[in-house]
Amino acid sequence: MSQPSVFKNYPIISYDKGVVEYKEDAVVQETPLTLFLNHVELATMVCSPGGYKELGVGFLLTEGLVQKPADILQISVREEEGLLWIETKNEIPQTNNFLRRHIASCCGKSRAGLYFINDARQLKPIVADVQFNAEYLLKIINTLEEKAATFHLTGGVHSAALADSSGLLTMYEDIGRHNAVDKVLGYAFLNEIPTDDKCLLLSGRVASEILIKAARANIPLVLSRSAPTALTIDIAEDLNITVVGFARGKRLSVYSHSERVLI
Amino acid sequence: MSQPSVFKNYPIISYDKGVVEYKEDAVVQETPLTLFLNHVELATMVCSPGGYKELGVGFLLTEGLVQKPADILQISVREEEGLLWIETKNEIPQTNNFLRRHIASCCGKSRAGLYFINDARQLKPIVADVQFNAEYLLKIINTLEEKAATFHLTGGVHSAALADSSGLLTMYEDIGRHNAVDKVLGYAFLNEIPTDDKCLLLSGRVASEILIKAARANIPLVLSRSAPTALTIDIAEDLNITVVGFARGKRLSVYSHSERVLI
Repeated sequence: MSQPSVFKNYPIISYDKGVVEYKEDAVVQETPLTLFLNHVELATMVCSPGGYKELGVGFLLTEGLVQKPADILQISVREEEGLLWIETKNEIPQTNNFLRRHIASCCGKSRAGLYFINDARQLKPIVADVQFNAEYLLKIINTLEEKAATFHLTGGVHSAALADSSGLLTMYEDIGRHNAVDKVLGYAFLNEIPTDDKCLLLSGRVASEILIKAARANIPLVLSRSAPTALTIDIAEDLNITVVGFARGKRLSVYSHSERVLI
Repeated sequence: MSQPSVFKNYPIISYDKGVVEYKEDAVVQETPLTLFLNHVELATMVCSPGGYKELGVGFLLTEGLVQKPADILQISVREEEGLLWIETKNEIPQTNNFLRRHIASCCGKSRAGLYFINDARQLKPIVADVQFNAEYLLKIINTLEEKAATFHLTGGVHSAALADSSGLLTMYEDIGRHNAVDKVLGYAFLNEIPTDDKCLLLSGRVASEILIKAARANIPLVLSRSAPTALTIDIAEDLNITVVGFARGKRLSVYSHSERVLI
C-alpha cells in the first residue's frame, strides 16, 4: 500500500491580495508509463509514480484483454524509464485497433523531456508577447466560476473558456476536462478566432495532456482554479507557455513564463 | 455559448443520519460521440450533450491532426445518434495508429444502451449476493477520505480502494481516476484476491468508463464520495451493479440495485 513521493518542489510566484512572494511550492508529479503487450507497444498512460505493474495489469483486466491471473506469463518493469512489459499466455488479437499513443523525445531542455505526440509531429514553442494583469486574471477566473455555478447542482462538471482583454469569449461545460477544452478550442477554430493573444481558462487541473492541447491551439497562457502537474510545468517551460494555477478569490500562483503576468 | 440540459432525473434512495427517503435526484448526463474522420471510425468520446462539432474539431486540432480551418472540408452530425463525420482536405495517414475504441450495442434494457467495449467482447451481469450495511459503507468511505487527506496537500489526486466486510484491503492515489482504479484492481488481480464479495471505493465521479472497469473486474458494489453519471446508472442497472454515490459524513445515495445496501 506504499507509493513513492507524488510531489516535487517548484519555484513559483505567489500573488495574494496584491502581495507578491517568490517561494517554493509542492507540485504533484505526473509520469508517462508505456505498456508493451507481447512486445508490441499498446498504450502510454500518464500517471502518478509507482504501482506500475498493478496499473498495467489492471488496465489489461479492466479493458477486457485478460481475465484471470493465469493469463499472464511474465511482467517486467523499468521504473526509471517508465517502461512496462507484459506477456500473456495467449495472443491478444485486438491490440492492433486498441488505443495507442506514441511517445517521443522532445526538444528536451527539461529532464522530464517526454511528450505524448502523434508519430514525429513536433510541438513548437509559442511565439506571443501578450500580457495580462494579475487582477484581470482573477476577475475572469471568478467570472468563469460564477457562470459555472449554475450548472454545478450535481457536482462533477468541468468548465473551460477562452478570454482576451475584453473578457470571456466562449465557455463550455463538460463531464470531461479534455472535452471542455476541446469544445472551447474547436469553437475558436470553427469561428476562425485567433488564439495567440488569448488565455485558456479551466476549472480543473492542468495535466500535461491539457497543456499539449493548449500548445497545439497556439495558446500562450493557461489559467486554472486548480493545480498544474510537475510534467505540465516542465513542458510549459519548453514550449513558452505561461501557467497560472490556484487562481481563486484574490490569489493565484504563476508556475512558468511569468513575464506574461503583470503583477 | 448555449448547451442542452446536462442533467436528467433519477429515482434514488437517500440515507441521511439514519433517515431513509425515496426521491428524485438530478444526475449529470453522459453521452457517447463517435467521430469518423474521412469515413473511418477514429475515436469514441464520452461527453456532455451538445457542442459535438466543436468537440470533434477541437479534438482533431489539439491532437495535431488538423492545423487550420481550411484543412476541413465538411462536418456533419447526427446529434440523436451521437455520430459525427469530419472530412479533411488532405488525407491524414496517422489515424490507423491513433486511439480507437469500439462501441457496440449492449444487452440493451436501458435506453442509453451503448457500451464502450473492445470489439464484440460482451459484458455479463455480475452474480453476487453480498450485502453491506449503509453505516459500514459510510465508515469505510470516511476512512478512505482520512487516509487520502495526507496526500492532498496540492489537491487534485484521486484515490481508490478495495474493501470487504473487514475494512480496506488496498488503496492507491493517482492523478488519474482511471489509473487509481486500475492500480487497485490490478493489485487484487496480481494477488489473486476474489472481488465478487468486495466493494470498490472512489473519491471521484463514477463515469461510465469506471463502471465498465468495475464490471470487468467482477465488482458488485461501487461506492463514491462523488456522483455517478446517468449513463453509469443505466449500465449499472443492466449489469447488476450497485452504485452508491455522494457518500460523505453521515449521508449517502443509492442509485441502482439497492438490494445490496442494508438500510
